[in-house]
Amino acid sequence: MSGIKSSGEKRLVLVSGRAHPQLAIDIAAELGSDLVPTDARTFANGELYARYDESVRGCDAFVIQSHTAPINEWLMEQLIMVDALKRASAKRITVVAPFYPYARQDKKGRGREPISARLVADLFKTAGADRIMSVDLHAAQIQGFFDGPVDHLFAMPVLLKHFKDKLDPATLTVVSPDMGRVRVADIWSDKLGAPLAIIHKRRDPLVPNQVSVHEIIGPVEGRVCLLVDDLIDTGRTIVKAAEALKAAGAIGVVVAATHAVFSDPATELLQSEFIDEVVVTDTLPLPAEKTWDRLTILPIAPLLARAIHEVFEDGSVTSMFDGAA
Amino acid sequence: MSGIKSSGEKRLVLVSGRAHPQLAIDIAAELGSDLVPTDARTFANGELYARYDESVRGCDAFVIQSHTAPINEWLMEQLIMVDALKRASAKRITVVAPFYPYARQDKKGRGREPISARLVADLFKTAGADRIMSVDLHAAQIQGFFDGPVDHLFAMPVLLKHFKDKLDPATLTVVSPDMGRVRVADIWSDKLGAPLAIIHKRRDPLVPNQVSVHEIIGPVEGRVCLLVDDLIDTGRTIVKAAEALKAAGAIGVVVAATHAVFSDPATELLQSEFIDEVVVTDTLPLPAEKTWDRLTILPIAPLLARAIHEVFEDGSVTSMFDGAA
Amino acid sequence: MSGIKSSGEKRLVLVSGRAHPQLAIDIAAELGSDLVPTDARTFANGELYARYDESVRGCDAFVIQSHTAPINEWLMEQLIMVDALKRASAKRITVVAPFYPYARQDKKGRGREPISARLVADLFKTAGADRIMSVDLHAAQIQGFFDGPVDHLFAMPVLLKHFKDKLDPATLTVVSPDMGRVRVADIWSDKLGAPLAIIHKRRDPLVPNQVSVHEIIGPVEGRVCLLVDDLIDTGRTIVKAAEALKAAGAIGVVVAATHAVFSDPATELLQSEFIDEVVVTDTLPLPAEKTWDRLTILPIAPLLARAIHEVFEDGSVTSMFDGAA
Amino acid sequence: MSGIKSSGEKRLVLVSGRAHPQLAIDIAAELGSDLVPTDARTFANGELYARYDESVRGCDAFVIQSHTAPINEWLMEQLIMVDALKRASAKRITVVAPFYPYARQDKKGRGREPISARLVADLFKTAGADRIMSVDLHAAQIQGFFDGPVDHLFAMPVLLKHFKDKLDPATLTVVSPDMGRVRVADIWSDKLGAPLAIIHKRRDPLVPNQVSVHEIIGPVEGRVCLLVDDLIDTGRTIVKAAEALKAAGAIGVVVAATHAVFSDPATELLQSEFIDEVVVTDTLPLPAEKTWDRLTILPIAPLLARAIHEVFEDGSVTSMFDGAA
Amino acid sequence: MSGIKSSGEKRLVLVSGRAHPQLAIDIAAELGSDLVPTDARTFANGELYARYDESVRGCDAFVIQSHTAPINEWLMEQLIMVDALKRASAKRITVVAPFYPYARQDKKGRGREPISARLVADLFKTAGADRIMSVDLHAAQIQGFFDGPVDHLFAMPVLLKHFKDKLDPATLTVVSPDMGRVRVADIWSDKLGAPLAIIHKRRDPLVPNQVSVHEIIGPVEGRVCLLVDDLIDTGRTIVKAAEALKAAGAIGVVVAATHAVFSDPATELLQSEFIDEVVVTDTLPLPAEKTWDRLTILPIAPLLARAIHEVFEDGSVTSMFDGAA
Amino acid sequence: MSGIKSSGEKRLVLVSGRAHPQLAIDIAAELGSDLVPTDARTFANGELYARYDESVRGCDAFVIQSHTAPINEWLMEQLIMVDALKRASAKRITVVAPFYPYARQDKKGRGREPISARLVADLFKTAGADRIMSVDLHAAQIQGFFDGPVDHLFAMPVLLKHFKDKLDPATLTVVSPDMGRVRVADIWSDKLGAPLAIIHKRRDPLVPNQVSVHEIIGPVEGRVCLLVDDLIDTGRTIVKAAEALKAAGAIGVVVAATHAVFSDPATELLQSEFIDEVVVTDTLPLPAEKTWDRLTILPIAPLLARAIHEVFEDGSVTSMFDGAA
Repeated sequence: MSGIKSSGEKRLVLVSGRAHPQLAIDIAAELGSDLVPTDARTFANGELYARYDESVRGCDAFVIQSHTAPINEWLMEQLIMVDALKRASAKRITVVAPFYPYARQDKKGRGREPISARLVADLFKTAGADRIMSVDLHAAQIQGFFDGPVDHLFAMPVLLKHFKDKLDPATLTVVSPDMGRVRVADIWSDKLGAPLAIIHKRRDPLVPNQVSVHEIIGPVEGRVCLLVDDLIDTGRTIVKAAEALKAAGAIGVVVAATHAVFSDPATELLQSEFIDEVVVTDTLPLPAEKTWDRLTILPIAPLLARAIHEVFEDGSVTSMFDGAA
Repeated sequence: MSGIKSSGEKRLVLVSGRAHPQLAIDIAAELGSDLVPTDARTFANGELYARYDESVRGCDAFVIQSHTAPINEWLMEQLIMVDALKRASAKRITVVAPFYPYARQDKKGRGREPISARLVADLFKTAGADRIMSVDLHAAQIQGFFDGPVDHLFAMPVLLKHFKDKLDPATLTVVSPDMGRVRVADIWSDKLGAPLAIIHKRRDPLVPNQVSVHEIIGPVEGRVCLLVDDLIDTGRTIVKAAEALKAAGAIGVVVAATHAVFSDPATELLQSEFIDEVVVTDTLPLPAEKTWDRLTILPIAPLLARAIHEVFEDGSVTSMFDGAA
Repeated sequence: MSGIKSSGEKRLVLVSGRAHPQLAIDIAAELGSDLVPTDARTFANGELYARYDESVRGCDAFVIQSHTAPINEWLMEQLIMVDALKRASAKRITVVAPFYPYARQDKKGRGREPISARLVADLFKTAGADRIMSVDLHAAQIQGFFDGPVDHLFAMPVLLKHFKDKLDPATLTVVSPDMGRVRVADIWSDKLGAPLAIIHKRRDPLVPNQVSVHEIIGPVEGRVCLLVDDLIDTGRTIVKAAEALKAAGAIGVVVAATHAVFSDPATELLQSEFIDEVVVTDTLPLPAEKTWDRLTILPIAPLLARAIHEVFEDGSVTSMFDGAA
Repeated sequence: MSGIKSSGEKRLVLVSGRAHPQLAIDIAAELGSDLVPTDARTFANGELYARYDESVRGCDAFVIQSHTAPINEWLMEQLIMVDALKRASAKRITVVAPFYPYARQDKKGRGREPISARLVADLFKTAGADRIMSVDLHAAQIQGFFDGPVDHLFAMPVLLKHFKDKLDPATLTVVSPDMGRVRVADIWSDKLGAPLAIIHKRRDPLVPNQVSVHEIIGPVEGRVCLLVDDLIDTGRTIVKAAEALKAAGAIGVVVAATHAVFSDPATELLQSEFIDEVVVTDTLPLPAEKTWDRLTILPIAPLLARAIHEVFEDGSVTSMFDGAA
Repeated sequence: MSGIKSSGEKRLVLVSGRAHPQLAIDIAAELGSDLVPTDARTFANGELYARYDESVRGCDAFVIQSHTAPINEWLMEQLIMVDALKRASAKRITVVAPFYPYARQDKKGRGREPISARLVADLFKTAGADRIMSVDLHAAQIQGFFDGPVDHLFAMPVLLKHFKDKLDPATLTVVSPDMGRVRVADIWSDKLGAPLAIIHKRRDPLVPNQVSVHEIIGPVEGRVCLLVDDLIDTGRTIVKAAEALKAAGAIGVVVAATHAVFSDPATELLQSEFIDEVVVTDTLPLPAEKTWDRLTILPIAPLLARAIHEVFEDGSVTSMFDGAA
Repeated sequence: MSGIKSSGEKRLVLVSGRAHPQLAIDIAAELGSDLVPTDARTFANGELYARYDESVRGCDAFVIQSHTAPINEWLMEQLIMVDALKRASAKRITVVAPFYPYARQDKKGRGREPISARLVADLFKTAGADRIMSVDLHAAQIQGFFDGPVDHLFAMPVLLKHFKDKLDPATLTVVSPDMGRVRVADIWSDKLGAPLAIIHKRRDPLVPNQVSVHEIIGPVEGRVCLLVDDLIDTGRTIVKAAEALKAAGAIGVVVAATHAVFSDPATELLQSEFIDEVVVTDTLPLPAEKTWDRLTILPIAPLLARAIHEVFEDGSVTSMFDGAA
């Protein structure tokens, strides 16, 4: 038979945008690899540019970017990097977006709105992405926005590990800051063996159209409350919740969230006297000026690195989270 | 300039699958039109066939189908009808699926699951659908599964109108049968000026791994409870909820839902002594043997007809629901 | 150069729908493999569900389904299984549909008809299928409906092997039951070294518009007739043909077909006194109540297994049929 | 409401490639329109070019080309013309290909063959065609190769009209030149009220592997035979058939075909003494040197013009052929 | 025939991003229309949002955005606005991008680079754009990056009109600032009836590897020089060119460009003593602090408005520029 | 875990169209491989056909074709060959088009023109090409017309090697035959260490509308001039340039070009007394009658073979041209 045969070999490469270089370095270190040296630049008028200094032909490429502000800048940089990989003959391209951009605009709440989370999935596809990897999507349905595999990772094991030795189930209550996040809090409650409480911002049901109150459902008096959420943006919801919990007799309030968006004035607000500790992961970069003594930042790189390894080696990402989802 | 000019004229046509012919007839009657005569058949081995007896060239076609059991049969019939319209040069094709099939499989709850609700959107697109019209999607994110316009209608105005003169806000409580449907119940509560209650099926938080209990949050004692949900399938959740409400002192339990799936044994269960009335719409067909005296079926055809009219005449569907969504 | 290298290894996996489990088990046995354990279910309202219990990441997956009644059910199940594989990062997905569904609606016989066989190809593609494998397509043009490789297998070698020692070319005539299948019969005639006859259902040519007669062209008197077709649906055509052959002096009538659709009343009809034996393959399941003593069912699994092996190992499927097509 | 309103008006335009200018002129004349003046050229190295001299913005464009030799030249010219229309903002583009190119390569007869007829459909789509119009496709399944509407016209009414007053059903036999075209001949037989005969080129069935003979099935002795086919290429099959018919006692042989491909040496062969008349349409151009006295060329322009008119005015093409297909 | 008929009417609507609101207001004024009121916002973490306050169903929408810094922000805003229009059932969507973003990254100058200008075209398509309108593309090939109509407008008539009465051909020389823009300068030279000169930045050809010099080819001594380019970014090239021209004896240097990108330090540099006047259009916004006395800004809105009118009314954009391109 | 594992192995295969068989043979020889035996044919009416005689399943296929006249013939043959590979389960298909067809129609110079170079890229994609390899594209932007990797090779190293020992930089001048090709000439000038000259066909700038003259810019008197271009079509531009150079005192004129299109009357013109030598590569076939004594044809096969090797082995094509592009 005609032709030339060669043994197939596959190569994993990691490339990174400029939004959160430390995360990419940490992932590479976990994997025992290096990042592909990349010439990434911003031109005078704001246009971006990226070029790889090494061949990426035939490789299994993971493009790491963290979607912090300026978020559109970093999204566009990642799209450009995917385009460059596609045109350079990468074999497979996985977008690693630990914090999925525009996840909160996942439906038309009213007519004539965009569904930006779907648009983002389509933009990644158009640029050349074959797969997406993300952590704690705001809505699990976002997986269905992408026409291809989505590796949906969960930070809960990382956060849980931090808390397991520190909190006593006997005096702990897991609290959901609003109605929409109860399901997540429920899993925490189950894993920690602690009761659940819910905070409901609503109109007084017996007096229509009255201003909202923070109603607390569940046992909080004399207990340490663990407020859990997928992300903290400006921090307003969380601080109001903490204040309500303390007012209701909580003896401690600890906050756990995966994504530390920390838009202004989050840093200021979260240092509130009502909050004893805030625990987040570093899916998004946190510069020194956005940190304080009662903030704990847990590294997400080990989780991402392990998932990348499983994807590359055709292992199982699902089995990383037995029962977690 | 070369060529032949002609004034543009547009034609709306309605075609219907065989799942729920009365609904299509009602919609046509509301619009003052007829359905396109269609030769639809099932061959000996179960393969389906459809052919239009009139030209549909250049028309604005609406393909009405109701996704009741056998649901895959009716889904396939609708796909085939869309294909036939596309190949017959219809100008624009809108799938009218009042009850969106497979809406509950809208995400991967675990690894290696399908996302069937996205698959269905893609199948419609592939067959040739330009647009989708549906009522009360199980998750609003499903709009984002289709790459094109989705007219998402709400049955709440239809249901509300039925209740408005019958229930007294002073003694009424709106109840959500589980945590996942609270947002819908909240809107009802607001519209009716009545308080909200929630039923929470969960493990006892202070005693880990114990069997679940139906916990009721909110005022129900001595009140008439209106249980609201988007769909009733086997009816088990609703009946358990009604029983719990009555046990907690409710003096009446009324159930309102858009989609009467009524899989066995729903018809039997819903006639429970704990439920005083069940109110649904006819998005799905209800044969006589699935009805009983305390069941009220409200016609959905007027709503669909009005939306189809707005779509055809480039009016506004959003403005049909001011503040409703 | 950056990155991590690993030797490429490929993995074949077999998954199966629920239409014809024995066929999948037989194929797996032929290949010396197991089927991937799969949780496949039908919900109360008829919606289907499937989930793989093992990782299928990076695998070369073959999704076996047999399109028997309820055919739309099994088609949808296969689409859902393909979707789940795609989202679980399978590397390549081959739909194995031994009997291609809707193959007979392969063109618009009249205006405003669907072309369902093309639609089915598009649905497979949309769900995520990269390739299709099928046996004895009703029209070879169906290969062109799919935008990708189609492995078109032929059951003739399997059937021929059965007959070779049983029939004497000296007294045998191969018969095509109608004008549309002559080409297939011609190949049989050639392979068996036996003459060809054709049955023509038509209007009497000299008396226009008169009812059709079964005209037999070719030598049948005193001979054993082998009626060959790609499929037997209700059996009416075949039985009428057999009756005509016997009336014309045939001393035996044997029927050979690949696909035993056997819609009612096929089982009853085919036990006709005019037919001495019916030989089919098990591309479609035949429950005990659809079998009888003069029915021979030949296993198709060895053929499919060999083709799957060739596809997986980059061998040649064409060379399995030297001169057969 | 914001915006500017304007009454919609639509404009039909006809453009033509250079393969068969007279056909386009005839169609335009039938429609009472002009062709769009077009600058079409071939550059020194064989590359083609086309530019429209008038605006085609927003128009309903029909691109007429006749796929005669050099067939790839004319196919490419049509693709380029479609591309130019698309980029010039034509609203809808219909490819008018009276003789569909590569129609005979509509399946893989053997492994590793192309399916060129599908490829051609895809090329048209890619260039920008929304619709295809063609006459007497070699296989009706080709309709299914295009993902959109195909207007499949039939030349039979045109040909029939020519014969109706000339041939006497009492002495006429319709003949199919081979097994593959019987269905078409059958319709002719029905329409003309004349019997059917078939010519079968095959191996002698009782003597395996012997060279083929032309076997005639049906009444031909003492009758006028009308040989019907969709196309005549080199003419070899037709002439051999005519010879066999005359040898079998036919008193006249008339040939009718839609597409006069007339590749060498068709012109010479068809002037055979065995053939009394050849009747074709001008779907393909016939230069003077390819005509002779016993050749009748019927104009296809009226049929195409009427179909174009129906498509433009959202009328019905199907109703042009009641019962014909 | 079934169905409801209605006269087709079409509606043009203009929507605008927030990058350059005055340009959109000017275009609307020229057309005698209003912009669709739009709720456009930036959330705390930088994510963007847009919603239309009026129905856009069935309309012919033009989405105006000016790609100034922060350019990725405005690009993303436009994509989101297109997505919202698509999902709101707009009939046709034209992206109006007077200055095409990333136009200068239109090829891979080296391996492993992106082709961002193609990526941008694909992003527009993916979001839902049917057409693009732009002014003076950096490379005309960018038209070919979009799979659909591109209306490529030329600002030269606008600029020429400004100069025609002010400059005397007898003493004027048109100058191209570098080798790559000669073709544009050549057209200007022709239109103004003035000679052409070229500035060539290059290595001294007789002394290899020596530093580059600004060589001037053509008559400049004692003449007024008109430097023409498509865009001015930082202004460095233009100022060096002006200096060289003055050094070579030019008695005046006037600069004309379509796109005033004016990245820092353009505003400062262009006020150089070597430049007597700078004339640009307002395709990009120029805040007061980026203007000075010798800068003339010509309105581009009349050109865009006229082109939008022609597109909406199916007129001709080509005929707006007879001989200009 | 279920399934069968196998070590991945990859196979490179070369297939070739019939336009320039020697080039394919040379490439295969360089790679130490054979071409896949292929049955390629032209039918009587000009339709083409190709079939591979060996399995190409799972292979990495390179389809070599040279786009010489009849160019549309060879383009179509290559598309058909790609289609056959796709349907035969080739794993990856690279179109090798050393001379990219229709490269000069890369933009709309005027309204209502095609962009044929983009169309060609889309046709390749549609047929099934995953990648394109080409040499010296007429415009580098054509890379952006293909939605996938394009390996853009440069013949300059091949041509340079030929000249390096023959020409003395001290007396050499590199000449661009027109304004549009200056950038290429500039690189040559740099590599050879020789000065640059430009020929400008233009209207006399001081006398508007006067006929064009060939103006020479740069040092040519008493020097050997090396005219460089990407292609030579009819040769008219080159011969006029050579004549002008000799008239200006050049003592020798040598021409170097990558693509020898040589449309009539190139062969005759290029033997002009003004041209001392013509050096081209064999990207296009040159039959004996198109060669003469002062024509040197350099083999391009080594370059293509090396690039194919790098692509197959996941090496680097970029590094083959350090600094060249």
